[in-house]
Amino acid sequence: MRRPFDPTLYLVTDTGLAAPRPVADVVRAAVAGGVTTVQVRDKTASRRELLGLTRAVQAALADRPDVALWVNDAVDVALLAGADGVHVGQDDLPPAEVRALLGPDRLLGFSVSSVAELDVARALPAGTVDLVGIGPVWTTPTKPDAGSALGPDGARALAEAARAVGFTTVAIGGVDATRAAEVAATGVDGVCVVSAVCTAPDPDAAARALRSEIDRGRLAQAVR
Amino acid sequence: MRRPFDPTLYLVTDTGLAAPRPVADVVRAAVAGGVTTVQVRDKTASRRELLGLTRAVQAALADRPDVALWVNDAVDVALLAGADGVHVGQDDLPPAEVRALLGPDRLLGFSVSSVAELDVARALPAGTVDLVGIGPVWTTPTKPDAGSALGPDGARALAEAARAVGFTTVAIGGVDATRAAEVAATGVDGVCVVSAVCTAPDPDAAARALRSEIDRGRLAQAVR
Repeated sequence: MRRPFDPTLYLVTDTGLAAPRPVADVVRAAVAGGVTTVQVRDKTASRRELLGLTRAVQAALADRPDVALWVNDAVDVALLAGADGVHVGQDDLPPAEVRALLGPDRLLGFSVSSVAELDVARALPAGTVDLVGIGPVWTTPTKPDAGSALGPDGARALAEAARAVGFTTVAIGGVDATRAAEVAATGVDGVCVVSAVCTAPDPDAAARALRSEIDRGRLAQAVR
Repeated sequence: MRRPFDPTLYLVTDTGLAAPRPVADVVRAAVAGGVTTVQVRDKTASRRELLGLTRAVQAALADRPDVALWVNDAVDVALLAGADGVHVGQDDLPPAEVRALLGPDRLLGFSVSSVAELDVARALPAGTVDLVGIGPVWTTPTKPDAGSALGPDGARALAEAARAVGFTTVAIGGVDATRAAEVAATGVDGVCVVSAVCTAPDPDAAARALRSEIDRGRLAQAVR
């Protein structure tokens, strides 16, 4: 049985962008401001460092059991930390393999940037993937290998197709407060941010501003 | 219950050095020549690529159940492939954590380059670590971050201390056929090689030459 989670404002951490502040401090402030779920991502850390980072973020979220914690790529780290979920990209372990390791109770997210990649997720047995990360909506310096940008219309089309088969959808890539409403208006279930929170001098305030824009975009979507 | 394995000639794979030959082809030839156990190591591969590589090597070893297969660092990959063991270094997941994921039946190797690092392994509950990789005996271009060289005398001292507490010992770092006898004569249970097999035009012949030198070194050790 998977835990429920709120994908509205999904923070992906970046250790370098958060520095010199510890990632866990940025996470704590961002969650106070309205981040609803957190993924620990650090492609340059060793597995040992990533486990330490994940546990530090977990400790920062100890009083927020409503905030689901995901680990990027590292299934072993997620299992050891007892994280709520794992998020994998197209180059990471295939979702069916990850699900075999995770068992039935943890969340699994999968990045898709095209209909062909969404089809990979759709072809898997029901219950393999819970969430698809759709992007990049815009190109972004935090993930230079992420492929060409979908734009809001491309994200909307992928999100509709993904929601139709029951996936939770979040959109990622270049989203900041000036664009969050536009992304939310595409009908995705949530908006992912990296730099917009990790580089913010005040991550609490940054999260509040993003939440406000997401609400505005959702309202626009509802009245269309 | 751990499977028995023969550490005598322990091959660590290197995808770049084996190229353009597939790693699995080099492994098959090397095992025919006398390699007794194989570790799949590729620090540049994605987890998805590493899983594919591990399964290819496993397929090459299908008719050699006597040859134990280890995966470097990636516990998730080892579990998915059903490898016999995992080998971790000082920067990878800590051995106690790896053992928790592996369960009691798989092998766990751990790299040590000093008495202090061996003490980490000795402080763990019995049955956590099965094998220690001692090195580098000599510095080596295949692992430039491996620290300063122990030399044969340093390797001998560490091996004696490790064997005294029941660890299987292998020595690694710069070992080729011209040095294998000297390493074997330190009293280690096995000799690890990377380049000496992966760059060899004839990995079968290279393994035979190494085995012959190991036998010679062991004889010298026995009659000391």
